[in-house]
Amino acid sequence: MPPLSLPESATVVEMLPRDGLQNLDRFVPTDEKVEVVDRLSTTGVDEIEVTSFAHPAAVPNLRDAEDVLAAIDRHPDVTYRALVPNDVGMERALAAGVDKVNALVVVSDEYRRKNQGMTLTENLDQVARIVDLAAGTGVEVEAGIGTSFFCPYEGRISPERTLSVVESVLDAGVDEVTLATTMGMATPRDVADLLSAMYDRFPSVDCGLHLHDTNGMSLANAVVALQCGLARFDASVCGLGGGTVLPDALRGVGNTPTEDLVSLLHGVGVSTGVDFDRLEAVARDVSERLGVGASSHVLMGGTPENVLAASGEDP
Amino acid sequence: MPPLSLPESATVVEMLPRDGLQNLDRFVPTDEKVEVVDRLSTTGVDEIEVTSFAHPAAVPNLRDAEDVLAAIDRHPDVTYRALVPNDVGMERALAAGVDKVNALVVVSDEYRRKNQGMTLTENLDQVARIVDLAAGTGVEVEAGIGTSFFCPYEGRISPERTLSVVESVLDAGVDEVTLATTMGMATPRDVADLLSAMYDRFPSVDCGLHLHDTNGMSLANAVVALQCGLARFDASVCGLGGGTVLPDALRGVGNTPTEDLVSLLHGVGVSTGVDFDRLEAVARDVSERLGVGASSHVLMGGTPENVLAASGEDP
Repeated sequence: MPPLSLPESATVVEMLPRDGLQNLDRFVPTDEKVEVVDRLSTTGVDEIEVTSFAHPAAVPNLRDAEDVLAAIDRHPDVTYRALVPNDVGMERALAAGVDKVNALVVVSDEYRRKNQGMTLTENLDQVARIVDLAAGTGVEVEAGIGTSFFCPYEGRISPERTLSVVESVLDAGVDEVTLATTMGMATPRDVADLLSAMYDRFPSVDCGLHLHDTNGMSLANAVVALQCGLARFDASVCGLGGGTVLPDALRGVGNTPTEDLVSLLHGVGVSTGVDFDRLEAVARDVSERLGVGASSHVLMGGTPENVLAASGEDP
Repeated sequence: MPPLSLPESATVVEMLPRDGLQNLDRFVPTDEKVEVVDRLSTTGVDEIEVTSFAHPAAVPNLRDAEDVLAAIDRHPDVTYRALVPNDVGMERALAAGVDKVNALVVVSDEYRRKNQGMTLTENLDQVARIVDLAAGTGVEVEAGIGTSFFCPYEGRISPERTLSVVESVLDAGVDEVTLATTMGMATPRDVADLLSAMYDRFPSVDCGLHLHDTNGMSLANAVVALQCGLARFDASVCGLGGGTVLPDALRGVGNTPTEDLVSLLHGVGVSTGVDFDRLEAVARDVSERLGVGASSHVLMGGTPENVLAASGEDP
């Protein structure tokens, strides 16, 4: 094959404050959340998913959504978004002054029933209401497409099924979609198959990839997605986050670490606005604050600079 | 891009007994080594690097090379090979009845000087002697090309430099070469650049990739290598192995876990002769015997079967 043909730049979306904290074994105090978001705002990531406007009883860890959004120091180059599961959440999000919302749609019926308590029709109806509520406010709407590849109850999800959901949300008027490897089970083959079918059918779609790393293939998936022309990725500092139905050893550390994603992107010559050293420092700080250990290759020292330093060379 | 175009099958070379044990913090008794090799022989891997014929003082953990090779139960479908650093090691390897040898050549001058105590000319001269000694014996000679991408002292190694070493070893008459990501710092871009240049220059070369995962990109590197047409990979069960100059957190667990590699290969539709369930069981056994914990995504439970089982579904 000819040398790797990849986009020149990619967008990085930081998921830690929402995906990383929602299932943590404890409530992180509001002022600590604000401090983490503010530190993330200085790394050069394009977008931060700050919180979720799920019902506080459903996601108690993020019951302080309004307070966090009110207290953060907004960086002019960062888009601050929140997850909204329904129109009630959307009204709260609009009142809290988000720049953008992530309206979650789940492909798998069983996963959606257990987690959202909705049928597909109800889920799509909520997306349509969210789009209606956003109209005229300047707030962007993206749809995260949960279980785009694999469901922990139904197994593999076919590209046709996921694309039919993508079509419905595009018809509903969302601005962009993000295919989610919710269980971290997607292979590079799955990514190539779904993305090539999707770009065939919707050539101008603005599509991102929400990365989980349960099977260890997420950076390979990112490279294949880049080769397909996709250039927007969701990741979470320290890899925090991930599905609650996962095996114990994988629970809580399931997203792709943002620092490993950025190390890959820069390593293959895809630019991001991210200052890698600053991101690494923030990851180290988050890792210590939350006591998650060295949960990424970068934090374990897997960078050229660290290897040169460890061997006694001046990097 | 069109859906992933990959070779139909790939060869898996198991490095655990040599690369995984040589730097372990203790000597694994000979009978345990034999048991591990015998169990690995039943997984369906094509080739096993059983030991090293380095000087016993240099690699005391493998000082029982002859005893291990004499005691293992040889499976007719497996190629049993050993590392040989020089002609003295080659004579020992031939006497011990190996099927194949791995004659190590190092591209980086500083790394070679510190680890092999040889100049490039001396190193290549040893390879030529090894090839001469193999002539007429039926023993195959492959050359592992150490630091093909990155040196912990010199930093990035240019493709031109590595290709010049490849050319020299091919001229010396070796049967196949294996590019080694010795420090685990290669990016998919590095792999694509070196492999496309190599296949341009040596279209019929039999080339493999020795995978280390220090930067977390090794499975991405494997996919890109497959896209370039490479279809032979070295990996080590549980990820055991790796350079001794690495940062502490990465020391000892630096190779790509064979079970993660095979999970990837099968996941993208590249067949191997490996029985995945058996490989997973051997990896679990090795992990317990050597006390290395769940050091691969497969051992952490990152397979579709485990995720389905964890969610209460019958896989």
